[in-house]
Amino acid sequence: MSRPPQRPRQRPARPVFKGRGGRPLGTERPVLYGWHPVVEVLRNPKRRIRKFLATENALKKLREEGVPIRAEPELVRPGEIDRLLTPDAVHQGLYIEADALPAPDIADLPDNGLVLVLDQITDPHNVGAIVRTAAAFAVDAIVTTNRHSPSATGVLAKSASGGLEHVPVISVRNLAEGLGELKERGYLRIGLDSEAPENLDAIAMTRPLALVMGAEGKGLRLKTREFCDILARMDMPGAIKSLNVSNAAAIALYAAHRATRTG
Amino acid sequence: MSRPPQRPRQRPARPVFKGRGGRPLGTERPVLYGWHPVVEVLRNPKRRIRKFLATENALKKLREEGVPIRAEPELVRPGEIDRLLTPDAVHQGLYIEADALPAPDIADLPDNGLVLVLDQITDPHNVGAIVRTAAAFAVDAIVTTNRHSPSATGVLAKSASGGLEHVPVISVRNLAEGLGELKERGYLRIGLDSEAPENLDAIAMTRPLALVMGAEGKGLRLKTREFCDILARMDMPGAIKSLNVSNAAAIALYAAHRATRTG
Repeated sequence: MSRPPQRPRQRPARPVFKGRGGRPLGTERPVLYGWHPVVEVLRNPKRRIRKFLATENALKKLREEGVPIRAEPELVRPGEIDRLLTPDAVHQGLYIEADALPAPDIADLPDNGLVLVLDQITDPHNVGAIVRTAAAFAVDAIVTTNRHSPSATGVLAKSASGGLEHVPVISVRNLAEGLGELKERGYLRIGLDSEAPENLDAIAMTRPLALVMGAEGKGLRLKTREFCDILARMDMPGAIKSLNVSNAAAIALYAAHRATRTG
Repeated sequence: MSRPPQRPRQRPARPVFKGRGGRPLGTERPVLYGWHPVVEVLRNPKRRIRKFLATENALKKLREEGVPIRAEPELVRPGEIDRLLTPDAVHQGLYIEADALPAPDIADLPDNGLVLVLDQITDPHNVGAIVRTAAAFAVDAIVTTNRHSPSATGVLAKSASGGLEHVPVISVRNLAEGLGELKERGYLRIGLDSEAPENLDAIAMTRPLALVMGAEGKGLRLKTREFCDILARMDMPGAIKSLNVSNAAAIALYAAHRATRTG
């Protein structure tokens, strides 16, 4: 396969984003680039900033929009940020390296919470879009595994469009254990599964609620299915029966929000 | 910005996919690669195949799955398909060049149809995901503009996951004119707009129905808004107020399907 020549690594610790896959959460310092991710980091005092690069234009725009500039940026030309990212990364003149956010435990979740559980969804664009939509639906946490999950950095953070600052990611060693803890907390665990006998629209969704999503193609693992209280399918009237996983998560969250909102 | 060196073009007519943007519909022969897009092309007798490359493994899998192999593939090694695509293209050993599908006119749409109208949504991943979800919700057509829309090929087709074979794309010169024709056909035109006074959940959706989506950030153009019967926002309870456009389209289609289904 033809690939662009590798740029020699200038610093061994520099994260290099390849657009797919990723290392387990916490093994590298999160990188956040682009307007929305960087603005939300600046607005989030819990996020400790270690390095902040900005172009003159981007800094001017941050000031115009009244974004709190709580770390002094190093003024750079766009090319200096280009060099830290892959060619397709749209950074808009803004680049931050920060500490990972502290994640709560399942024990800390609210008693009437709404949680998304992701079973080995590996594509960082999809997970990022899910984080963004989860932030829009005020989801209390995303529960995922240490392994077989993309890092909360780079492409994922960009697709999340600032959502990472609002939805904590709880990373568990073993999804079945995490689902067991959610059960102890009283969460109704609904697994989305295209082969399920029940239709999601026909299920009484109640809070606290955990929606469990599997990867496209593979779906939920057998062990994950066993740790759900209900398995439900989404009936599609058209010729294509499977949705992009972030689109499926959006619909499930919308349905859950409509069914369980209190306000 | 650092970019991989350009490979010299071997044939002037060869389409080269850059992952973003694209030329207006119909100026190049559609390329479809990857399992789902190619399988759906093979199952769609309306799609005329001009060139079909397959690896031995991929052809074996097509036979095992009972896919109608209605054009004789040229057996190739994976590297030969790699050379025709960008390095990040996941082709799974399958590559087809085909004619564009015939598109209906707005006059041909059903009297109780469901249509999506896209106002200058340019990202081919997003438009592809929208086409896939539209196919799942049995949308009758996607209406878009000749200009400022990505081609129904390559990355878009891959993200659509075969959906292009099921949802015709009606390409109009001028979106306002297209919306005018939909009005004449009796379509209720609902524009999704984050600043709208009305909430989508509070609107009585009836068929025939056209849902009009704008690009992220820009939203609907002024002229497009003028040609909608109702403007509606989607209320988000969380900290992030805007959704990825394909996630927003999925929720709008789900809400429309629930509100207007006859079966």
